[in-house]
Amino acid sequence: MQSKYVIGIDLGGTKIHGAISDFEGNIIFQKIISTCAQDGEKAVLNNIINLIDYIIKESNVQLTNIEAIGVGSPGPLDVEKGVIIKSPNLPFNNFDILTPIQTKFNVPSYLQNDANVAVIGEYLFGQGREYKNVIYITVSTGIGAGAIIDGKIYNGSTYNSLEFGHTVVDLNGPICGCGNRGCIEAIASGTGIARLAMQKVNNCENTSLKKYEKITAKEVFFEAEQGDRLAKDIVDNSLTYLGVSIANLITLFDPQIVIIGGGVAKTGDYFFNKIRSIVKEKGFYPSKEFCKIVPSTLDGNSGVIGAIALAIIEYNKNK
Amino acid sequence: MQSKYVIGIDLGGTKIHGAISDFEGNIIFQKIISTCAQDGEKAVLNNIINLIDYIIKESNVQLTNIEAIGVGSPGPLDVEKGVIIKSPNLPFNNFDILTPIQTKFNVPSYLQNDANVAVIGEYLFGQGREYKNVIYITVSTGIGAGAIIDGKIYNGSTYNSLEFGHTVVDLNGPICGCGNRGCIEAIASGTGIARLAMQKVNNCENTSLKKYEKITAKEVFFEAEQGDRLAKDIVDNSLTYLGVSIANLITLFDPQIVIIGGGVAKTGDYFFNKIRSIVKEKGFYPSKEFCKIVPSTLDGNSGVIGAIALAIIEYNKNK
Repeated sequence: MQSKYVIGIDLGGTKIHGAISDFEGNIIFQKIISTCAQDGEKAVLNNIINLIDYIIKESNVQLTNIEAIGVGSPGPLDVEKGVIIKSPNLPFNNFDILTPIQTKFNVPSYLQNDANVAVIGEYLFGQGREYKNVIYITVSTGIGAGAIIDGKIYNGSTYNSLEFGHTVVDLNGPICGCGNRGCIEAIASGTGIARLAMQKVNNCENTSLKKYEKITAKEVFFEAEQGDRLAKDIVDNSLTYLGVSIANLITLFDPQIVIIGGGVAKTGDYFFNKIRSIVKEKGFYPSKEFCKIVPSTLDGNSGVIGAIALAIIEYNKNK
Repeated sequence: MQSKYVIGIDLGGTKIHGAISDFEGNIIFQKIISTCAQDGEKAVLNNIINLIDYIIKESNVQLTNIEAIGVGSPGPLDVEKGVIIKSPNLPFNNFDILTPIQTKFNVPSYLQNDANVAVIGEYLFGQGREYKNVIYITVSTGIGAGAIIDGKIYNGSTYNSLEFGHTVVDLNGPICGCGNRGCIEAIASGTGIARLAMQKVNNCENTSLKKYEKITAKEVFFEAEQGDRLAKDIVDNSLTYLGVSIANLITLFDPQIVIIGGGVAKTGDYFFNKIRSIVKEKGFYPSKEFCKIVPSTLDGNSGVIGAIALAIIEYNKNK
């Protein structure tokens, strides 16, 4: 019997990451291209189709041995119809992205939002492998999350579950991109941390952050580590609120494991120690003791591995 | 074929409510007795067994036609082992409550915590009948919740999911019974509202609440309705935080319906209008628009109807 393969596509605002893999998650060929979002929806669709075509050819896998294609995309999506409803950094507007892919390759194709795809990837190939109740959180430009409940992806009633970044944790907090005040995304995302730091610098407060032309969360974490008081206050305040939000998530979902990925989480031990200590303080017994909080080990590849895992899970469901 | 019946037991700190019902939820006989918690665990167990015995006899149903017994109890519980781990208002301490009941009647018996039992009741016989993603919230002495996800009760990994009352919504809020600060239970439960009002009265603030010897949430809602400024501020503040917590719950679970019961929710239109308006303001689109927020129609009987529904669901699962 010949080996079976799937293709995963991680669609982002600046780049598209595609890969072909066997059913054990071993990637045999992969490529990253620019999204070229400014060229419009049809151009981006063509870029995806050409990328899939290129990957198949370079991998020397026969099209008949490719069982499924999984696509992870920012949302909101209509997962059942394969439609990207709209997305801040992509040109799509109620655009059916799956039908043209299925028509071109004659391979069953599946769409899921990027946070759900990431939790599926962790569940099949990452830190969530031995669990059936898994939550994945990404703390990056924005904050998102996805959940596996009893071994199945939890979509919610409108395919918009786990919009964790927009849970309100401080009624008097900063304004979020969504228009609300005090969402955790406004307080603890990379964007939120950088914005708060720039406000403080513009208020002429005393801080070594002044020396940077452009401040991102990375500089704030770095200066906090170097002992800058203001940077440390910003980091501690953000991580305290993030820890409380994660404690609430654990109090509600009672998961076995929370996996955290994304650029801000990559700041490392200080990040994880602080989150764990706040969850211990603010969570509810026994779920707070039972639930592990760990870094993603797929980071960087979590999008494309998640899309591969989506294809495998859907193939197994439908075979 | 003879009709089939189940028995539901709603175990509370002051009373035990038992009922026998057919599989359509029609109660044919019911009785409420005192728990007599002060007499200890064996005495309470005997009270339950005697109540079941009495209900069977008075209903004239043959024991062989009783298919299952459902017991709802405050937790934490070990649902799989049928054990009440401990409960603030009951004498049980790691007590196996199901084995003696099963041994005595030779009928399969099931245990679930009271909030989960209530959501099962709403799902089978109440406002949740036409939905598969249902959340039930009780706002009473404490605040609790239970969830039906994709048509099944969600227990969580340690059987402690949906400890909604202990999600932290104000880091600088009042101290909760659990020891934490700013849990929604400390701010918006009947106990929380009454405590806040009594503090204000003791601080000699100007309010018509002064005339009461004992202040409960009921008096605070009544005086707020009569135009008392301080009472209205307390009610509005509590319901704002409760609304934000419910908005967060909807943003995470993306349910079809949230059903609210319990004494505080019984205060009526003002309560529901305020909660709905805060969810509209603080929730995330589209889940906040999609999700209905409605009062429980089983209230008062929701415990025993939930225990009946638990018995029916478990019977159907195992038959």
